Amino acid sequence: MDKKPGKLFVISGPSGAGKSTVIARLLRSLNTVYFSISATTRPPRRGERDGIDYHFIERREFEKMIERGELLEHAEYVGNYYGTPAKPVEEKLAAGYDVILDIESDGARQVMKKRPDAIGIFLFPGSFKVLEERLRLRSTDEEDKIIKRMEKARQECQRIDMYDYIVINDRVETAAEEVIAIMRAEKCKTAERVHYLKGEC
Amino acid sequence: MDKKPGKLFVISGPSGAGKSTVIARLLRSLNTVYFSISATTRPPRRGERDGIDYHFIERREFEKMIERGELLEHAEYVGNYYGTPAKPVEEKLAAGYDVILDIESDGARQVMKKRPDAIGIFLFPGSFKVLEERLRLRSTDEEDKIIKRMEKARQECQRIDMYDYIVINDRVETAAEEVIAIMRAEKCKTAERVHYLKGEC
Repeated sequence: MDKKPGKLFVISGPSGAGKSTVIARLLRSLNTVYFSISATTRPPRRGERDGIDYHFIERREFEKMIERGELLEHAEYVGNYYGTPAKPVEEKLAAGYDVILDIESDGARQVMKKRPDAIGIFLFPGSFKVLEERLRLRSTDEEDKIIKRMEKARQECQRIDMYDYIVINDRVETAAEEVIAIMRAEKCKTAERVHYLKGEC
Repeated sequence: MDKKPGKLFVISGPSGAGKSTVIARLLRSLNTVYFSISATTRPPRRGERDGIDYHFIERREFEKMIERGELLEHAEYVGNYYGTPAKPVEEKLAAGYDVILDIESDGARQVMKKRPDAIGIFLFPGSFKVLEERLRLRSTDEEDKIIKRMEKARQECQRIDMYDYIVINDRVETAAEEVIAIMRAEKCKTAERVHYLKGEC
């Protein structure tokens, strides 16, 4: 086995689309995948653990990371910073692992520009009605934040063409299966496997 | 549900790559798929049934179908004609079914030219050594035909870039799973789903 680099999968979609749930589900089925843990300055929600759900860091430290160019992407969103530390991603890809990023659409655009080989997957909850219901059910946000998130979701929808795939998350199990199928299919692309075959010809 | 047309999947690869076995396996898992039955002038092998494995027809009738433009593709191979009747394929696609074609590489090229939206999957047995072993095990062919098939396989390998995906069939179960993943992923492509989403935005 040669050390073929892994592939980078960017999973994005509106807040409330169920990205975390779908990713948690698919990680249970895949063991050669590294899930990148984002850094954020927002306070932990109930049940969230530092270094597992996010790296929760101070605003000043986050700004230092931006200055040092240590982030693959970053964005400020509803008053908080979110970003992807570059080093662990690059290391895992080089070691042959596929890497999954769970990021907002501004960050997704930054990554897709920097790495045109990245595969973009847009997760959508099926309808805006369902999205709003989910945001209210989560009930960690105040009304003005929910309105902002809904506006943002409509904007994201307008830029859908930057993604390679769309997965409708009306059932977590099905959505996770679809993402797994996408990851598997991408590894079968001719460009991925032609070198092996050319050696045989 | 609107009547979105199905997608056309062309599965090709050298004789002996295990196309029939892999397709039989994946058809057991998929029920919205139509498998196109080819017409051929070659005599049935042991166990092959007319109208199920192939439409076994006379040389004269095959040539009439060519003249009437009733074939999506056709090729002469090791002294026999093989071809795909166009009508059932077009009808099933229009009715929303995905359609799988199992064809030799000359026919595959014809279909991919006529229908640039077709998805090409190249099935390969892992190595030429394994391929030769399989052809001998099948033992329905004489030595000169085996040599011809091996030559043809090497030629096909040179034109690999016309396919979208490569599936290595060293285990039927895995190969079938990969083809299923490819079919599923293709249905998630942004171009396939964007219309649904645009309606929501």
